[in-house]
Amino acid sequence: MNGRPPQRRNAFYAQAGGVTAVLNATAAALIETCRANDDRIGKVFAGRSGILGALDEALIDTSLESEETLRALRHTPGGAFGSARFRIGRAGLEDHAVYERLVDVFRAHDIGYVFYNGGNGSADTTLQLSRIPEVFGHPLACIHVPKTIDNDILDTDCSPGFGSAAKYLAVSMREAAADVASMTATSTRVFVLEAMGRHAGWMVAAMGLAADSHNHPPHLLLFAERPFEEEEFLRRVSDTVARHGYCVIGVSEGLRTPDGRFIAEIPATIAGRNEQLGGVAPVLARLVHGRLGLKCHWATADYLQRSARHIASATDLAHAEAVGREAVRLALAGRTAVMPVIERISDHPYRWQLGVADLAGIATREKCLPRDFITDSGYHISARARAYLLPLIQGETDVPFRDGLPVHARLRAVTARKKLPPWDPHGERQQVALSKKT
Amino acid sequence: MNGRPPQRRNAFYAQAGGVTAVLNATAAALIETCRANDDRIGKVFAGRSGILGALDEALIDTSLESEETLRALRHTPGGAFGSARFRIGRAGLEDHAVYERLVDVFRAHDIGYVFYNGGNGSADTTLQLSRIPEVFGHPLACIHVPKTIDNDILDTDCSPGFGSAAKYLAVSMREAAADVASMTATSTRVFVLEAMGRHAGWMVAAMGLAADSHNHPPHLLLFAERPFEEEEFLRRVSDTVARHGYCVIGVSEGLRTPDGRFIAEIPATIAGRNEQLGGVAPVLARLVHGRLGLKCHWATADYLQRSARHIASATDLAHAEAVGREAVRLALAGRTAVMPVIERISDHPYRWQLGVADLAGIATREKCLPRDFITDSGYHISARARAYLLPLIQGETDVPFRDGLPVHARLRAVTARKKLPPWDPHGERQQVALSKKT
Repeated sequence: MNGRPPQRRNAFYAQAGGVTAVLNATAAALIETCRANDDRIGKVFAGRSGILGALDEALIDTSLESEETLRALRHTPGGAFGSARFRIGRAGLEDHAVYERLVDVFRAHDIGYVFYNGGNGSADTTLQLSRIPEVFGHPLACIHVPKTIDNDILDTDCSPGFGSAAKYLAVSMREAAADVASMTATSTRVFVLEAMGRHAGWMVAAMGLAADSHNHPPHLLLFAERPFEEEEFLRRVSDTVARHGYCVIGVSEGLRTPDGRFIAEIPATIAGRNEQLGGVAPVLARLVHGRLGLKCHWATADYLQRSARHIASATDLAHAEAVGREAVRLALAGRTAVMPVIERISDHPYRWQLGVADLAGIATREKCLPRDFITDSGYHISARARAYLLPLIQGETDVPFRDGLPVHARLRAVTARKKLPPWDPHGERQQVALSKKT
Repeated sequence: MNGRPPQRRNAFYAQAGGVTAVLNATAAALIETCRANDDRIGKVFAGRSGILGALDEALIDTSLESEETLRALRHTPGGAFGSARFRIGRAGLEDHAVYERLVDVFRAHDIGYVFYNGGNGSADTTLQLSRIPEVFGHPLACIHVPKTIDNDILDTDCSPGFGSAAKYLAVSMREAAADVASMTATSTRVFVLEAMGRHAGWMVAAMGLAADSHNHPPHLLLFAERPFEEEEFLRRVSDTVARHGYCVIGVSEGLRTPDGRFIAEIPATIAGRNEQLGGVAPVLARLVHGRLGLKCHWATADYLQRSARHIASATDLAHAEAVGREAVRLALAGRTAVMPVIERISDHPYRWQLGVADLAGIATREKCLPRDFITDSGYHISARARAYLLPLIQGETDVPFRDGLPVHARLRAVTARKKLPPWDPHGERQQVALSKKT
């Protein structure tokens, strides 16, 4: 219609799962690349709250955002269009009504490209969405764009978002350790910094980069991969304090007892409740104080570690923008059910290139911290881990400040006029909502 | 002796109490100013672990540190010479043996200047030390150099160290809020960020700067000054989530129940133990989750907020260096029992100058958050608070990075040859240690 060639179609972009410091940089790069290819791609609609925006037909028309706003997105943490934790079953098998709705929306808005920006779960969703042409006859290129601080996506050397969280944790560990070292004569002897990572210890491994040698903090790292041996831990803390005067510890929120219980859940159990993870650092601090009589401070960075755009890694930012651009190129090259990946050419000097991975081999699987990334003692990272991790935290990025605070993008976030009746006539939405990840 | 004029005497510098991101910048500026006045001041000895270094005759000879190291101190968090929480009683009244030892050490090392770099408790110690000439006949100029993230020192517009912690908290709050705002559709609805400040809410007030208007996070601030009203709090959280989709909360570690118990101590009480503060944020998170059924994340920044030199305030850094230099000038002008202070000339544009305050009026008292810094509702900062706080977080500072991490000073930290027998013949040290602050 309107004389435009039939191959010029609109795109749908969605953010999925936990956000990162550089997720919006991927979005900006992707949208800019679409704009640069306006002979093939019309508008980019961003789902308000990710894929929910497609179901609700809440499509943010990014063509109304200025170039200045897109540039500002580059240094805005979080997910500017809203993210969602939402899983869909198999196309044509489960959740058929959900797919029908998605196809209705895609057809109504002439959407021929889907860019789904998330982690392992989202890779699976993208793979399912890629069956839409076959099952529903609606032509659609489905590209997954990798993102997660957890660094657990297969077939890519690293996941955009991880490098910045890793840098935040390594920097914070080094700075806090300098603080603790000052106070040991009369006050705090033990400090515990907790990292995210329920299943894998990538984040706690990153804290190990703060150490220059074996004599510098952090002295002990507690990985999600290794069962927590209380007596051995206390002995090591005690030995470290005897040797260095203090002990700095990095711990993964996912630390478990040998019988598989989350350490962070123990206080809730004591109080007769069973709730979401309550922080492993305070549990360790109470243990150290109670058993060893040492004054112990602790910090739980939580969202700070994944939103700290002010200390993002320049390398990570470059990755995040590159996968955004490459996703568009892959779609325009006729690819579907794939994602752009980061391939490492060398550690030192660090060199990398873009590659492409088939989603069929990736979805719903997790990349674990290799066993040889942990020292034989089990309490620190190996030289191999350092060689892998160090390039990912290299470089600092420019962030504009106003009035002493970082400036974030303010989107107009205007949604396109709805063309369909509201979804949810049979309560499908509630049903789907119940199956969402928590 | 050695033909040098009798007025050329050595200086003793000590760091005291909780450290800050810019404490070492004060030290560097002070030492450099002493070096620039080498006709009057000989060596600067820094106490290893603060005043304990004087008692132990563990005097770090800073003349052996290079100019490069002093420059690096400027961007090194913590207390590079070691800090101590240590209170001494009145000279000539209590702790007489402690003063005798100090005077012995000062005499042995020809120390005529004491620069004591700390908070309210240290101001009192400096005031007591200033009685040494009168009680012991040893000439000594005693200058307190203000420092504390708590911002509770009287007679100065602000305390060096506070502005950087305030900036860290405001930046972290703004970034984390952007993260939370992304996730509200299917995941986290409430986020709690905990600030230090056991007695005063200066730090939690700083988080309020992250708000651009009343419609932006943080939505609720819980000050140490205001008793925690559980039902009203839950109602406000619920209302905020209903209105904005999410609720971001800043809380002071010193939050108390109306009957005066620390909220952070409640879990330990439940578990039948009575220990150090365990974090108020997880308690609030469990409350919100348990009573309102909302997914809640929380972070406790702890030492990260006072060591985050990478995001220090340029204004705070300028204050920290200025008081270091001015302390030396005051001593050389023959002053004692005083401290250099920051005087505000205007809020906007922010202009300030140095002043001097008598320690007699300051010591052991605390500057509280003014009542009119809190809004009438009690849950946010007033315009007056913003006008006061905003200048203190202005400007970013250059921090050198190597391998993706901030570079910190590495001191030689060589102690001067001891001239006295070891202290502690009658167990005085143990006795004093028992009276130390915890």
